[in-house]
Amino acid sequence: MDFAHDATTEQLRRELLEFMEDFVLPAEPVLARQLAEADPWVKPEVIEELKAEARRRGLWNLFLPDREHGAGLTNLQYAPLAEITGRSPHLAPEALNCAAPDTGNMEVLAMFGSAGQQREWLRPLLDGRIRSAFCMTEPEVASSDATNIATRIRREGDEYVIDGRKWWSSGAMNPECAIFIVMGKTDPDAERHRQQSMILVPRETPGVRVERGMRVFGYDDASHGGHAEVVFEGVRVPASNLIGGEGDGFAIAQARLGPGRVHHCMRLIGMAERALELMCRRALERVAFGRPLAEQGVVREWIAESRVRIEQARLLVLKTAWLMDTVGNKGAHTEIQAIKIAVPLMAEWVLDKAIQAHGAAGVSQDHPLAELWASARTLRLADGPDEVHRVSLAKRELKRYA
Amino acid sequence: MDFAHDATTEQLRRELLEFMEDFVLPAEPVLARQLAEADPWVKPEVIEELKAEARRRGLWNLFLPDREHGAGLTNLQYAPLAEITGRSPHLAPEALNCAAPDTGNMEVLAMFGSAGQQREWLRPLLDGRIRSAFCMTEPEVASSDATNIATRIRREGDEYVIDGRKWWSSGAMNPECAIFIVMGKTDPDAERHRQQSMILVPRETPGVRVERGMRVFGYDDASHGGHAEVVFEGVRVPASNLIGGEGDGFAIAQARLGPGRVHHCMRLIGMAERALELMCRRALERVAFGRPLAEQGVVREWIAESRVRIEQARLLVLKTAWLMDTVGNKGAHTEIQAIKIAVPLMAEWVLDKAIQAHGAAGVSQDHPLAELWASARTLRLADGPDEVHRVSLAKRELKRYA
Amino acid sequence: MDFAHDATTEQLRRELLEFMEDFVLPAEPVLARQLAEADPWVKPEVIEELKAEARRRGLWNLFLPDREHGAGLTNLQYAPLAEITGRSPHLAPEALNCAAPDTGNMEVLAMFGSAGQQREWLRPLLDGRIRSAFCMTEPEVASSDATNIATRIRREGDEYVIDGRKWWSSGAMNPECAIFIVMGKTDPDAERHRQQSMILVPRETPGVRVERGMRVFGYDDASHGGHAEVVFEGVRVPASNLIGGEGDGFAIAQARLGPGRVHHCMRLIGMAERALELMCRRALERVAFGRPLAEQGVVREWIAESRVRIEQARLLVLKTAWLMDTVGNKGAHTEIQAIKIAVPLMAEWVLDKAIQAHGAAGVSQDHPLAELWASARTLRLADGPDEVHRVSLAKRELKRYA
Amino acid sequence: MDFAHDATTEQLRRELLEFMEDFVLPAEPVLARQLAEADPWVKPEVIEELKAEARRRGLWNLFLPDREHGAGLTNLQYAPLAEITGRSPHLAPEALNCAAPDTGNMEVLAMFGSAGQQREWLRPLLDGRIRSAFCMTEPEVASSDATNIATRIRREGDEYVIDGRKWWSSGAMNPECAIFIVMGKTDPDAERHRQQSMILVPRETPGVRVERGMRVFGYDDASHGGHAEVVFEGVRVPASNLIGGEGDGFAIAQARLGPGRVHHCMRLIGMAERALELMCRRALERVAFGRPLAEQGVVREWIAESRVRIEQARLLVLKTAWLMDTVGNKGAHTEIQAIKIAVPLMAEWVLDKAIQAHGAAGVSQDHPLAELWASARTLRLADGPDEVHRVSLAKRELKRYA
Repeated sequence: MDFAHDATTEQLRRELLEFMEDFVLPAEPVLARQLAEADPWVKPEVIEELKAEARRRGLWNLFLPDREHGAGLTNLQYAPLAEITGRSPHLAPEALNCAAPDTGNMEVLAMFGSAGQQREWLRPLLDGRIRSAFCMTEPEVASSDATNIATRIRREGDEYVIDGRKWWSSGAMNPECAIFIVMGKTDPDAERHRQQSMILVPRETPGVRVERGMRVFGYDDASHGGHAEVVFEGVRVPASNLIGGEGDGFAIAQARLGPGRVHHCMRLIGMAERALELMCRRALERVAFGRPLAEQGVVREWIAESRVRIEQARLLVLKTAWLMDTVGNKGAHTEIQAIKIAVPLMAEWVLDKAIQAHGAAGVSQDHPLAELWASARTLRLADGPDEVHRVSLAKRELKRYA
Repeated sequence: MDFAHDATTEQLRRELLEFMEDFVLPAEPVLARQLAEADPWVKPEVIEELKAEARRRGLWNLFLPDREHGAGLTNLQYAPLAEITGRSPHLAPEALNCAAPDTGNMEVLAMFGSAGQQREWLRPLLDGRIRSAFCMTEPEVASSDATNIATRIRREGDEYVIDGRKWWSSGAMNPECAIFIVMGKTDPDAERHRQQSMILVPRETPGVRVERGMRVFGYDDASHGGHAEVVFEGVRVPASNLIGGEGDGFAIAQARLGPGRVHHCMRLIGMAERALELMCRRALERVAFGRPLAEQGVVREWIAESRVRIEQARLLVLKTAWLMDTVGNKGAHTEIQAIKIAVPLMAEWVLDKAIQAHGAAGVSQDHPLAELWASARTLRLADGPDEVHRVSLAKRELKRYA
Repeated sequence: MDFAHDATTEQLRRELLEFMEDFVLPAEPVLARQLAEADPWVKPEVIEELKAEARRRGLWNLFLPDREHGAGLTNLQYAPLAEITGRSPHLAPEALNCAAPDTGNMEVLAMFGSAGQQREWLRPLLDGRIRSAFCMTEPEVASSDATNIATRIRREGDEYVIDGRKWWSSGAMNPECAIFIVMGKTDPDAERHRQQSMILVPRETPGVRVERGMRVFGYDDASHGGHAEVVFEGVRVPASNLIGGEGDGFAIAQARLGPGRVHHCMRLIGMAERALELMCRRALERVAFGRPLAEQGVVREWIAESRVRIEQARLLVLKTAWLMDTVGNKGAHTEIQAIKIAVPLMAEWVLDKAIQAHGAAGVSQDHPLAELWASARTLRLADGPDEVHRVSLAKRELKRYA
Repeated sequence: MDFAHDATTEQLRRELLEFMEDFVLPAEPVLARQLAEADPWVKPEVIEELKAEARRRGLWNLFLPDREHGAGLTNLQYAPLAEITGRSPHLAPEALNCAAPDTGNMEVLAMFGSAGQQREWLRPLLDGRIRSAFCMTEPEVASSDATNIATRIRREGDEYVIDGRKWWSSGAMNPECAIFIVMGKTDPDAERHRQQSMILVPRETPGVRVERGMRVFGYDDASHGGHAEVVFEGVRVPASNLIGGEGDGFAIAQARLGPGRVHHCMRLIGMAERALELMCRRALERVAFGRPLAEQGVVREWIAESRVRIEQARLLVLKTAWLMDTVGNKGAHTEIQAIKIAVPLMAEWVLDKAIQAHGAAGVSQDHPLAELWASARTLRLADGPDEVHRVSLAKRELKRYA
């Protein structure tokens, strides 16, 4: 259980920190300006520039443990790098081609995709030439229970026909988004976890209708391609678009979710660090009633408590990454749940305090805090609400004594 | 300390509940549609229709205790009515001509305005023909300390010349917003609380520049005219535009803030009730893992705890209103601070739990919860952050034993 | 819903405050000394002296709304008086003959006792000549569910025979404790809430065995007669000792619990006020790092937050008392649950902060805080744990929308 | 930063777990019985029996990194062992001769004691033949600020004369307690941190008066020798009893406190684990309203949340231990403060929930929970209240940006 950075990690950290300092952080106001000026859903140019620069520097596809397609880093090596990107989560992850949902989709294709699927979709994703969406959650049902999925994928000859309605398909409104991975039921009568399959649906296929962007506390997350509600009506794709076999959908989803949750948590540590830094700077600069906030009591409590909480959360994320590397994602199941519960709450707490220290400016577009807060808050719901994870984790704990 | 509804209140409550049921709640989706379709800052028509209907029904200017200009209700009579409007805070308060910042501005004009000022600005405000903004907070300083105000109001002959920068001037981007009340310093060398004055500045005066709308989390609050950053450069108005005398600004601000805070808190009780109702309905309807949420443990804890917190907060608001009626706003100072601290936090908590019970839908535009949450969160900062109020309240408590 | 003190209450408040100042507070160190020096379970003399003085002053049996036997005060009149006694909860309630469990037992006898039972037991209790215990909770079962009660009360000729084991029978080790009210099942096959009966058992009856005193965070509560574990083995009492009829036990228990919970909550408000006063005094006196604690940030947050929480809790207690007076204990059911949930938690929070402000002295016998804390903590469990009340309250809330 | 157990640790863990299972846990009820039956402050026999057995098994002085006198384990090796002893904190640490305050006192003597001091006092302490106390905190002053110390140590010829009053001298009422280490001022006019010295005072020296035992909530901690208030009046000891030189007191205290805090935190992890185990067992066994608690909502939330919090806290303790081993206690200063803040609060939270799950039994002497809770609560104050550590930690964090 050695969490020290090895030489590879240390080298990449140095390079990444330099890239952040020189390129990403200065690009934040540029992004804000380009978003404000552009039509909705038009891709801000600054992102493409950052991608080019990152790729030139070899800071590319770091998330992918598969050495054939990606950087070949372990989870433990990737963790401190993902944390750094979390300090600027609307720019850095995508700049490094390490942004959700593409990361998860690339993992799925790398692990379960056929050679043809990999050639057609994985390659351009790895190159950052296209983006993708993952269509799983549905508006009408509690999607944390996969047996509720109502979308149908029916075989007809050499094709599959897809009918259903999805939402929170992040990235789907990105103009570069070319491909959807859709989860649906091929056999509703099969055993509970063999009913579902996953299939590739190019966005331009007839019958696919991107209806609207969902908002998150008022934010449309346009620079990421938003979160779409998508309707599939009689959508036909070649049978070869199925990923793996019929009934493999649930297992693929499980394989995909573990790393996804961990990546979120790694980045949340970085968000919290960013918030703490901003809170400290504000406390030093802002004078109220004759003294800087930093010399007044309760802000110091917040700063200390933030440091204490961040440290604990980071260590649990590192332990989880290490477990995934050593005993596999399944063996790390409890820890993945634990960080899914603990880390968004921690980040939300630190961000709330940082906002409060900034006064009304903290809730506005002038600081990144409010938007980061909305991300952290949403992660208490994304990939299953905390409450579902808590019940599951408790059952496992109780089993030790039953 | 009798909190029961008297006959007047009971009658108005019944009429208001009917108006809410028949007009306001059905107008919510209409507002959302009109806002989505319109250009930013264009006034949605549905609001004007509601205003007309409310006025026809005599549900108009209920907030104004002054019988000459308003409904002549006490704070205790108004409290349960304001609470009801809080259930739909983006429509009901304005429909009844009881929305901030107009309410505070009308109070200022009714109490401190000259006959000419009342004729020119109070009359059309009371009629709902124009709207207004209040320009106090400044971006560069901790505005909870009024001695920090940097805007200057200088006398030159028969005019005052105003220079400064304000932000969070709510309503200023409303196309119907015609008049600003601006706080600035007429004499920076006077005694601490006699440096400030308030002055009326018509929006169209040369030198007034509404620069941008501040966002609250991702919301622009366009239906209310947003929250503007406004620059005043060499703005000249007649000397008769001064409200009261030079140096009266701080006292007027204090007189204005008390009722404003209480009105916010009354409405927050209604927001929390709305959230609790939505949480209950969701818990009854939504099935996960084979049972409605309502039969699963933690949601019931949230519901019970919400009820317990709302009841306590409401009683403290009522006591505060009763105190204002009986011993005046000054005598109710501690209680006004207490509700300013307690009620937004309470509402935020209930809203957070209601959001969580709704899953990802809870953070989206499909339910009012996320936007209500953003309002409640912001009220922990508006009119002075909680922390300032806590220190002040504690000092008063400590004085009893010093 | 008028919470103001009427003339009777105001007069009694003044007299009670004087009695507290002149007699009760000065008696606190005397009690501590007498307890430290005496054998366990010997009654400290100071309590009898206070009782005599209180009775002389007419501050006696204030809790009993029944004018025939008690002071005839409403709950709303009694609330501010009980609050005052809560400031010194180990002396004042008993001094006024208003201490649990005697209060509840006297209420039971006044409402449900036969003339003979009232003569034999109620009279000496009202005179403060004897004390009593209430034997309901059992060690082996979740006693918040009354159908779990395992103690048997069987009729044999003119007698009832009682067998069972009880614990947390408060006061049973008091040397003056003469009578137990015991809850048991007369008919386990009857309808759910008609299985139980209550019966009077003189402590000296053969077969009654007081086994040991339960401790509460190390405290034995000896001055109150502790909390006993009591075994009943073949205990025979005359049939006339039954209170009401067979099967009335559950209803009597319900009638008894409502006022009991409210009295606890009234006193908890006083405990919290005491804690807040001690915290303020400590903050003013104690100097650390060159300044009194009162000038350092976080203690001020605690003081303000304590005031805000106490005010809200008190109002909810008053509303509950008012409801009990106007619509009866049953109509006030939800509010009784609400204060049972809210008030102990509030008092615990304030006490915890007051302890922290006192440093290690705060957890010791040198200040009343730690012992008060233990009482408040225990009330989150007594008369049913918070969680049971929350589920029940939530069900009622959900019913409004089902 | 490798937290894995090495072979030595793994071997000792196995042996210690066996010792706990076979000897310590079965001795818990024996201790309770012996304490209940014995006079206060008489040493329960069972402790001596456990000490003998532990020593026979080589489970002895594991805390002492100094290979000459102790087991020579690193902090990281000792951490999981200390955690295990924390599961039975009233027996296991003393059984292994690893209990405070002896541990700290042995460290002081091993590091700073003269050969004579080591022969006379360290040797018998290492053998478990005597016990010791540490007299630092004083009743009249905020002792977290060492410059407040009022006890005087004056040189007179070949002797030092000591005058002062101490309290919370843990272990001083233990009949085997033979030696006190006393902190006082030799030169009140010296530089801030050179005023203090430490000196050895045999308990039987004339002028030493152990006045009373302080209580922690209602506990006297008699099996540990309690927490004494001790008066020193004209106490004379040979000059050779000074530890180190005059003015070294503050530095020695600092050296002593670091490991002491870490040991407390290691054991608190074990206490929390014990509480979680008891909560799980109770939840499985206890039936209320027809179902085991384990199937009801909120207990599962508590169990999951406990696991999540314990894991994070343990990792931070391990990191702190590792830092102390690699960069020294001074380099680990921030982390020592962080665990001092985080771990007692965490343990208190878990214990509170475990108590609640046990109903009234949880606060009583029938389960270890209430007494463990009192320990955890007290550690939020011992060695400086949380608030002092938070301010200090925040200042360090702020310095990074100043």
